Amino acid sequence: MAMLSQSHDGHDHQQKKDPDTTPKQVADVISSQDPPHPAKDVAEERARTDWDLKEMHEFLEGDEGKSEQILRLYQSIERDPILQTRPEQFDYTQKQERELVANRINQMSKFLETEPYGKFRRRLQLMTVIDPSLGIRMLVNIGLFLNCVRGNGTQKQFDFWSNKKEAGIVKQLYGCFGMTELGHGSNVAGCETTATFDEKTDEFIIDTPHIGATKWWIGGAAHSATHTVCYARLIVKDVDYGVKTFIVPLRDSRHSLLPGIAIGDIGAKMGRQGVDNGWIQFTEVRIPRFFMLQRWCKVDRQGNVTLPPLEQLSYISLLEGRVGMATDSYRIGARYTTIALRYAVGRRQFSKKAGEPETKLIDYTLHQRRLLPYLALTYAAAVGTDRLERQHEELLANLDIALAKKDKLLLKNTITGTKSMFVDSGSLKSTLTWLAADLINETRQACGGHGYSSYNGFGKTYDDWVVQCTWEGDNNVLAMSAGKTIIKTVQQVLNGKELKDSTLEFLNAAPELSKAKKAVIRIKDHVDDVDRVLKAIAGLISKFSKDLIPISYQSWDSIGAQRVILSKLRCHYYLLETFNDRLNDKIKARSPARPHLENIIKLYYVTNILGPFIDEFLRFGVISPQVAKYITYEYPQKLCANVRPYVIGLTDSFQQPDNFINSLIGKYDGNIYTNYLESVKDVNDPFNYKAPYSEALEAMLNRSALENRERSERAKAAAAILSK
Amino acid sequence: MAMLSQSHDGHDHQQKKDPDTTPKQVADVISSQDPPHPAKDVAEERARTDWDLKEMHEFLEGDEGKSEQILRLYQSIERDPILQTRPEQFDYTQKQERELVANRINQMSKFLETEPYGKFRRRLQLMTVIDPSLGIRMLVNIGLFLNCVRGNGTQKQFDFWSNKKEAGIVKQLYGCFGMTELGHGSNVAGCETTATFDEKTDEFIIDTPHIGATKWWIGGAAHSATHTVCYARLIVKDVDYGVKTFIVPLRDSRHSLLPGIAIGDIGAKMGRQGVDNGWIQFTEVRIPRFFMLQRWCKVDRQGNVTLPPLEQLSYISLLEGRVGMATDSYRIGARYTTIALRYAVGRRQFSKKAGEPETKLIDYTLHQRRLLPYLALTYAAAVGTDRLERQHEELLANLDIALAKKDKLLLKNTITGTKSMFVDSGSLKSTLTWLAADLINETRQACGGHGYSSYNGFGKTYDDWVVQCTWEGDNNVLAMSAGKTIIKTVQQVLNGKELKDSTLEFLNAAPELSKAKKAVIRIKDHVDDVDRVLKAIAGLISKFSKDLIPISYQSWDSIGAQRVILSKLRCHYYLLETFNDRLNDKIKARSPARPHLENIIKLYYVTNILGPFIDEFLRFGVISPQVAKYITYEYPQKLCANVRPYVIGLTDSFQQPDNFINSLIGKYDGNIYTNYLESVKDVNDPFNYKAPYSEALEAMLNRSALENRERSERAKAAAAILSK
Repeated sequence: MAMLSQSHDGHDHQQKKDPDTTPKQVADVISSQDPPHPAKDVAEERARTDWDLKEMHEFLEGDEGKSEQILRLYQSIERDPILQTRPEQFDYTQKQERELVANRINQMSKFLETEPYGKFRRRLQLMTVIDPSLGIRMLVNIGLFLNCVRGNGTQKQFDFWSNKKEAGIVKQLYGCFGMTELGHGSNVAGCETTATFDEKTDEFIIDTPHIGATKWWIGGAAHSATHTVCYARLIVKDVDYGVKTFIVPLRDSRHSLLPGIAIGDIGAKMGRQGVDNGWIQFTEVRIPRFFMLQRWCKVDRQGNVTLPPLEQLSYISLLEGRVGMATDSYRIGARYTTIALRYAVGRRQFSKKAGEPETKLIDYTLHQRRLLPYLALTYAAAVGTDRLERQHEELLANLDIALAKKDKLLLKNTITGTKSMFVDSGSLKSTLTWLAADLINETRQACGGHGYSSYNGFGKTYDDWVVQCTWEGDNNVLAMSAGKTIIKTVQQVLNGKELKDSTLEFLNAAPELSKAKKAVIRIKDHVDDVDRVLKAIAGLISKFSKDLIPISYQSWDSIGAQRVILSKLRCHYYLLETFNDRLNDKIKARSPARPHLENIIKLYYVTNILGPFIDEFLRFGVISPQVAKYITYEYPQKLCANVRPYVIGLTDSFQQPDNFINSLIGKYDGNIYTNYLESVKDVNDPFNYKAPYSEALEAMLNRSALENRERSERAKAAAAILSK
Repeated sequence: MAMLSQSHDGHDHQQKKDPDTTPKQVADVISSQDPPHPAKDVAEERARTDWDLKEMHEFLEGDEGKSEQILRLYQSIERDPILQTRPEQFDYTQKQERELVANRINQMSKFLETEPYGKFRRRLQLMTVIDPSLGIRMLVNIGLFLNCVRGNGTQKQFDFWSNKKEAGIVKQLYGCFGMTELGHGSNVAGCETTATFDEKTDEFIIDTPHIGATKWWIGGAAHSATHTVCYARLIVKDVDYGVKTFIVPLRDSRHSLLPGIAIGDIGAKMGRQGVDNGWIQFTEVRIPRFFMLQRWCKVDRQGNVTLPPLEQLSYISLLEGRVGMATDSYRIGARYTTIALRYAVGRRQFSKKAGEPETKLIDYTLHQRRLLPYLALTYAAAVGTDRLERQHEELLANLDIALAKKDKLLLKNTITGTKSMFVDSGSLKSTLTWLAADLINETRQACGGHGYSSYNGFGKTYDDWVVQCTWEGDNNVLAMSAGKTIIKTVQQVLNGKELKDSTLEFLNAAPELSKAKKAVIRIKDHVDDVDRVLKAIAGLISKFSKDLIPISYQSWDSIGAQRVILSKLRCHYYLLETFNDRLNDKIKARSPARPHLENIIKLYYVTNILGPFIDEFLRFGVISPQVAKYITYEYPQKLCANVRPYVIGLTDSFQQPDNFINSLIGKYDGNIYTNYLESVKDVNDPFNYKAPYSEALEAMLNRSALENRERSERAKAAAAILSK
């Protein structure tokens, strides 16, 4: 896997001799050279850290309690012999990975039984970063399955399945989430599995009518799950009431499949090999009527159907998945910027002047420009997703109170909050999971060939990660939906409506912003003013949306690409607003952390918002053309230079321990080469210098001449005989 | 792996009832619904193809002979029991994959012995698309190793190692390419392995002085190679002459390691698991003086060193790797646009109106906008890389003639051609391998969840692919180098030099173009004029370069990002120029293929060049702001609509057979769901409904209560006793 050097390019050779190939006197001939000292470089740069790591970590995580809980959990995971990571796990086959994950589920279930649920969920969230397969296998049960029961079932139904049947502690039951079908992913309302009421027996008949309705991708179905919540069309007396939810047992207590249930393993996947995704076909499977989840829609003994007025509220708890993926994006970003920046400080390549030591990668302008915007994004994502998490928790709590107390005003507010939550979670989930995928890719490339080694973590994480862009709402579909809401909201505001209790309240300024003729950012100084930048984003969203309203009357479809852009802008507004508020609230003016965070916030919005969307900002006259080049080239370079000296401290501030980061070149001590070579040797014993199939290889190399192998039957002698 | 539906988003629910959840009368209750008919949809759209597939394929491949050879090779590969693909191979472990590759190498070596070399190279190029590990394992020997011997060795040295020792047919010897070190990737001239001349014994001593100089990533070293070409610093009489090349035996004819050679397996990687990459450390390994490759640099018996005047020519043959990666980008693009577009025609999701059949994915505007620019890019990459391949072959042939005939003029031209080739191959390799990675990612996401299944091909290809962005010249390093040459070339032209026999001749217009005050593209009609678009790109390159010249005097490093952009623009100029020329040369005015290619070329440059670089085009006044929105939104949409009806025919024109495309949802017949489910069942027998580790899983679910497992020692009764 050789890297053919750039320095050999003819062009440079024409200009001058490369200093490294000029004959020069050397002290001695063999083994006289000084080895690289990456750990020394990293330690020196670490010493520059002039702020309190604890203060910075609390800033990122939101408060002291959460910060401390996370640090204790890192420690607990690092010490746990089953939960901790090991380099050899990167070599695991699918079978080994699935078994490892099953062991971890077992271990996690013991914590679930004994520690406070909030702490357990945080543990699971952290484990999800280092073992996404474990994360999803547990979340399928305690997240999707139980959240669906919670959202769609009555309180008693939830108590029964979660507590009495113990699915809530992964005991007795293991639920999976039977939503997606082979022919239906995004369009859940179009699912074709049927649940037909049989009045005679007071049962539902669950049935897969054809191949397209085969339940597909169902996590945990292949081998783990005993039950599924099945999304199926409710059919009563030949009337189709649309898709409702039903608990369907799949396996008995001996884990054998029940009659009428056909299940298979989906097999190999790009990533998350540790998950036993399956497909399910139901053939006239009968379940009692009371297995239907009936918080909203009800069917009585006589087959009378009561339809739900507030069914959309059932989805609030399922949004937990999207919120979690936004948060995951932050932690993944922290993990990979830490690896790439430690490597960039320890790794040297090419000398800037003959005779000088080689230059650290991080001292190349382009290298800074590639990595530091992602570091800044990660800071913004930390605070933004922390807010989203709290916003979602509050909403769930309010819904429970509103329903329990029958508080109509609170219920109304909850519905408004739900609307905001759909836009915010959809926009943050899609924007941040995409950006995290880009971040993993860019940080990997920034580590050159070593980024391609499994033991440095990039490959597996990328493969495990990217499904986040597809599941629980395809990113493009989610972003288009968020964009649609934004356009409609702007339209309503332009028509005189005032938004209240909505996170989109900043759009109340749309009438004024959309009419503004003067650009919001006109001179260089304006770029330093965060409030002005927020106003510029709001201005762009307002003008862009207003521009699209007339087209939307003809065809929402035709403005799909524009809706995606609006969703991304909304995400960034959310992140920047939160970052700015928290900086003002939590970091004192004289805190040594403050100047660093001020650089970071600027780097974030200049390189992640103003730069990437510059053509839109210019097109709508929100930014003046005179500052365009400043925004896209000059200022980012200056901001990168400001942040550059502190990259070790700024990544140390994420406080992720070595075992969690799980990368040989990304360890705290910066001892890149030794850590890397020694572990590679541990995992791949050099004593095995022959392949298991070496015999075949040697036989090929030592084969006899073609003529012999052809029994000399094409030789001249043969020709002489055969031609006669 | 459920996809939480967008259609449930509260927002839409507020507006109107979803048609799919409105109660409606149904004919019957169970199994009454019509299954999806994707094959019918694909067949209907295929019938629209109104051009000759043969003519189109010849257009893409360059000529009739090449087109026919490729079609025959597809057939040969598809029929060959060892070379053909099978779905179960996606489940292979690293061990299985390596063994499969070894078997394929064996099979390929038999073709190598018997078929013309040109045909074999084409076979290998095609095999590289379906089995990149096979590709690189063979290319390490017959490409890198032997090309290095050819480029750096004398004719007799090459004959000896390639023919007499039979490395050229993968017999007796198997060479690997010992260039990269643990501490040195891009900076080959900085390699630290030493080759010290011992006058007493007339030998070189090959030595690894420290951990950083460990040869790393060496493909084939772990288990296959018997020899390596070792890049090491030539040290004679305490003088370091820089990095030269030496043949060093690693294993004897019994495949045992030779003394002084330490080798280990690099282990798991993101992709290309089938390659046995290794690390090598040399400890005072002695080789005879005549194992040094001495076409250029020579060391005589007395230790007198002759230094090479034309050493850069030794790299021409090694550029083959970069040229090949550019071509691979086309074939990978063809493979994945074919899969995604067949799926987009067969797959339906959401109805546009209640009661209507669901809409084909390809009929969504955003879906067209996501995929069709990549289809157009693939056409451009086909013709562009075909030209690059021919350009490289011609250069190699001329070099051989020039050296054999000592033809000084031809040698001078070859040197000029080499300079062009460095820029062109560097710029095309970096730009196209990046774009191909994006293409695989976008086409995967466009297939939703099914894109994540291994059996549809995306995951493995992505993982195998992305190392192309790093090896044989890191893309950023290559692009910066190409960009530097472009800036210097513009500078020379501005200073009055005229370029001759260079592919950069279009920059002779730089003085005029860089001064132009009027935009090249000012009105919509201008966008339809290919010559004008070429002029606009040349204009942008000229103005951009001119702008950077003063900064380059202070610091090349500070304009790294800009140099990368220039390299990308140069690649696109090359592709567009070639596409346009070939369209004019080869496709008759009345050919039914012509209007389709005219749409494709426009879609290519509007969405891949003008759109993505619009902010630069605007900043330098090459495009007028009035047409910006037309270029970024309106015209792409129109061009997509023009191309959309013919997507099946346009991908059929690549003529890649099913076995080559190797994707269950991407087959010719479009029978997505049946092909997919049946093969998944074949590979993962549903009879195995319990996991191998099921016992542990069941034990967890059926565990007794926590109190029992704690031996009731925390119970009240215990408390009563223990508290006394």
